[in-house]
This record gives sequence, C-alpha cells and structure tokens, in this order.
Amino acid sequence: MRAIVIPEHGGPEVLTWQEMPDPHPAPGEVVIEVAASAVNRADVLQRQGLYPPPPGASEIPGLECSGVIAEIGENVEGFSVGDRVCALLAGGGYAERVAVPYQQVMPIPDGVSLTEAAAFPEVACTVWSNVFMTAGLREGETLLVHGGGSGIGTFAIQLAKARGARVLVTAGSAEKLQRCFELGADDGVNYRVEDFAERFAGQADVILDIIGAAYLPRNIAALATGGRLVVIGLQGGTRGELNLGTLLAKRASVHASGLRARPVAEKAVICREVVEHVWPLIGAGRIRPVVHAEVPLQEAARAHRMLEASEHVGKILLVR
Amino acid sequence: MRAIVIPEHGGPEVLTWQEMPDPHPAPGEVVIEVAASAVNRADVLQRQGLYPPPPGASEIPGLECSGVIAEIGENVEGFSVGDRVCALLAGGGYAERVAVPYQQVMPIPDGVSLTEAAAFPEVACTVWSNVFMTAGLREGETLLVHGGGSGIGTFAIQLAKARGARVLVTAGSAEKLQRCFELGADDGVNYRVEDFAERFAGQADVILDIIGAAYLPRNIAALATGGRLVVIGLQGGTRGELNLGTLLAKRASVHASGLRARPVAEKAVICREVVEHVWPLIGAGRIRPVVHAEVPLQEAARAHRMLEASEHVGKILLVR
Repeated sequence: MRAIVIPEHGGPEVLTWQEMPDPHPAPGEVVIEVAASAVNRADVLQRQGLYPPPPGASEIPGLECSGVIAEIGENVEGFSVGDRVCALLAGGGYAERVAVPYQQVMPIPDGVSLTEAAAFPEVACTVWSNVFMTAGLREGETLLVHGGGSGIGTFAIQLAKARGARVLVTAGSAEKLQRCFELGADDGVNYRVEDFAERFAGQADVILDIIGAAYLPRNIAALATGGRLVVIGLQGGTRGELNLGTLLAKRASVHASGLRARPVAEKAVICREVVEHVWPLIGAGRIRPVVHAEVPLQEAARAHRMLEASEHVGKILLVR
Repeated sequence: MRAIVIPEHGGPEVLTWQEMPDPHPAPGEVVIEVAASAVNRADVLQRQGLYPPPPGASEIPGLECSGVIAEIGENVEGFSVGDRVCALLAGGGYAERVAVPYQQVMPIPDGVSLTEAAAFPEVACTVWSNVFMTAGLREGETLLVHGGGSGIGTFAIQLAKARGARVLVTAGSAEKLQRCFELGADDGVNYRVEDFAERFAGQADVILDIIGAAYLPRNIAALATGGRLVVIGLQGGTRGELNLGTLLAKRASVHASGLRARPVAEKAVICREVVEHVWPLIGAGRIRPVVHAEVPLQEAARAHRMLEASEHVGKILLVR
C-alpha cells in the first residue's frame, strides 16, 4: 500500500507519499481499506517532532478514518469484511490501509456519506468523552467552547445544543463567529477584539479549552459556581497560574486529558457511548458534518498548510 | 443562652463567653440544645477576620455540634423534640443552643457517646463529599492524605481503609505518623524531613489536600494516571503554578471545594449519604472517634491555642 510518512521532522514539505508494507490484523484488530482520513492539530505536532506516537502505534500519522473492512483478525466481534465503518486510530490514518482494534471501529452514522464519516471519530470521541463523560454537561447548563470554528468547535456546538445546553464560543474572526451562530451558538466573542473572560465572567458550567496556560486565569474567571474546565490542547503553553482560592470559592475543577494515549479499553467505552448517544443525533440531522475541504491524501502537505493557516471552519478531510 | 462571640478580630483572647439571644427555629429548622461542639481551622480564620460567615449564617463560630433537639420549626420531617442528634452547621455551634436546617441534622451513630458524636459531622461530610462523591475513590485505589494527624486526616485514613483503599499520609512528626499507622495508614512521610512528592511520585489516585498553592506542583507529581487532587484548605497560599502538560499527560484533575457556603440542598444530599455509608462503619467499630481533648465551651480560647499549636491528633471538642 501507499501512505504518507514523516522521514524527518519539519514543515509540511516533509510529508512524503510512498510505498509502505501492508498492515495485517493482529488478534482483536480489523484492517480498513481507507476511503477518507482527516487532519488534526496532533498530526502537525507529530510532523514537527513534538508529539511522538504512543508505544505500539503506527509511525504513519492520522488519528481517524472511514472506509471498508478488508480483513478481520482473530477474536473480533461484530464486524465482517465489507462493512462500511469509521474508526478512531492511535495513528496510521494517512494510508490506503490501516489496522485498528475492533473496539475503536464504529458504523457509519445514518445520513452521511462514507467520505463525510471521516469527519466524526476524533471530534465525536473527544467532545463526548470530555464534555459529557468527564465534565458531565447537563441540559440547561452553559458550555463555553474555545475555537468555535475548529473541527472540535463546530461539532461541540451542535452536540451541546442538541442536548439542550446553552453554548458560548470564542473565534478569531467575525466570519467564523457567524458560522458558529449558524450552527447554533447562543453568544460569541472574537478573541482578537474582546476579552472573553469579561464578557462571560461566571457564566460557564463547562469550558472546553484548547489553549492551556495562556487562558488558565481567564478560564477560571469564566467558570460558574460548580464549573468544570476541561483542557484538551496546549496551544498557549503548559505552565499557568492557578488561583486555588477562586477555584475553591467556586467549588470548581480543572481537568486535562488527551484521547490518543488512552488504553483500548477506555477508547472502547467512549466509542460505544458515541454510537449510542451521538450517532442517532447525526442520523436525525441534528448534527451535520462540517467539512472545510477535501484534499487528496497524497497532498497531505497542502492540508497541513491549510490547518496551520487557521482560516478553515470545520474539518479538513484527506480523500482517496 | 450563652455563647462564644467574636467582638473584634484577633488572637484567641478575643473569644468572649457572654449572654446572647436564644435562637428560634425558622420553618424547616430545629433548635438543638448543644452537648458538644468542636473546633475547626475555619473557626480560627473567622476569628482572625479572614473567613466571614456566609450570608444568613450565625455570627457565632462553630461548624458542628451534638446535642438534643429542644424545638421543632414548621415543615420539619423526621425529627422530634428530645431526639439525640449531631449536625453540620453554617455557624453557631459555640453556644448553648443553635438553630439548623433539619436536613443537616443526623442521628448519633451507634456505639459513640453524645459528646463523641460532635467529632464527626465536619470530618465525615468533608471527607465523604470530597474523597468519595467528588473524587470517586474506589476500592483498591490509593488515597494520599495531607495532615494525617488532623481531625480530617484521622477520619479519612479510617474511612478510606474501611472502604478498601490504600492510604498514604504526610504528617509533621514521627509521633503523628505513628498514630496514623495505628489508624491503618499503609505508608507515611514526615514532611519536615522528606519530600512526599519524591516518595509517592505517580502513586496517588486521589489526594486530599489542605495546603493549596505551596503543594500544587508536588501534588501533581504525586498523582497517578487518572488521578484527582482535591484541595479543601489553603494553609500554603492560593496562587500556585499548574503544569497543564503534566496534568494532560496524566489525564488528571484538580478540584477545590468548601462545605460551609454550599446551599442547604447540597448539604442535605451529603448528610443523607454520610448517614447511609459512613454511620454503619462507625456502628461496626471500623471508624472510631479520635478525640485529642475535651475543653469546656467557655474556654474556647484554650481550644484555639491548642489547634494553632498543631500538636494535637484528631479532634478538639468543646463540651458543656
């Protein structure tokens, strides 16, 4: 098969389309003939050498895909060759074929194409596990999503609205904010011109944050009593000041979590819950895939440049 | 009635025993004829003017008591005049009588005296709500308790052991550590001579912390993957550095919470769960009251000096 590899760390130009050994299914794995994958910030960090794959994961980048099951390993339950699926990967998605534990494979949600389905595994598993499983966002509560125009953001807005929450967003342009409002966001701040912490002070029951240290004090200011801050990205650095007095007065909490390094058993629980709770909302048209562009897989470098320019809204797919 | 009041903020000497108006039960309240109360760090802060009572609470200090119900207000369920009880208070415990919402009143656990029962409401509600309800400590997990010799510490050791956890402690002397081991602690560090974060690096699934900022980086170092740090005191300051990169790599969380300012409805849930889950362990002798001294209520100043000297192990009671 052919795949995108990272022969050396660096800019998008290092991404190389080349022949690679076919993956074979270990016990508990299936091999998917990939129809589409998608780019994530973590892929850019991996390309730069800042985020090595976890032990045992493929060196090929790519954290999600859609496609058709081509091979089945031993001890796999519930799937057959020919099934149309999408999957959460620990790596290997930028390829014609990828092997993955069957517990991380999900059916294609009703109402979306095989290609569009590649837009969902990372955002659905990330938002469900962090906003709902970890932070326990409830109907009637308020969610603040940073980067409302990102793949995570556009999905989080729709899912939280579909589950009866109020949604606040930040974004880097008026155009992105407008797209967030169209997806259902109730209020938003262009962070280039306004301080979100002043505007949303004390309002957020849950915050989904991709910035980290640079936003920590302001995120705490935006939390409501009993609020939960969930940090899933560190684009603004790692070491921040935490005022425990404020946290205590608000009876609030700070959580931080990544998806990729979790054991398969935890990913299995997340994928099962996503299929149970999220897929029906996609099937009912309550959540739509938000796809900024479909880029041929061999042109992954172009997709990375697009992601790094941060002018997109939604997901950037890599297609065969 | 007579009570201890704080005419002006300052040292223990400001505490004054004087005549005060009798409390009367508002709807939903009972009045308890106090048998015993107990001192807490929060009382010292209140005396110093650093921790004002929450809106609506008595100006008289005292966050817990035991005694006999003397009066019943309207709309009180489940209690009668003459019942022997203990209670979690928002204030007013350093007095001959105190009014309290009936949802914060609990029966005396089996096997302990009316006086001893005053040792339990604050520690039981604090440890249960933070370690079990918030942090969800499970059987087989490891709890690290700072200040293992304190009222909170001596109770947390016993409760966590009774529920099948491994318990690590810090304490300020070899004698206090010895007492912690007698109560069931599995391992301990004298923080005056050894760094707990080195000794317990990566071991704690849950940490119950009373220090705050000064321990924040070391507490994060002591957390295991998936660990939960719960800060309930700020004896070491409020503003600390939080490394979100480490928190994310460990998929860990930081919680901070106080009991006193919570709404009655939340305290009601906590008290109900304490009676259901903790009182039977006291009745079975698995958890014993650890009482350092019984000081006459009118000598509250002496009890405060004792608490501030930090040479006690367990609770310091104020008795009639």
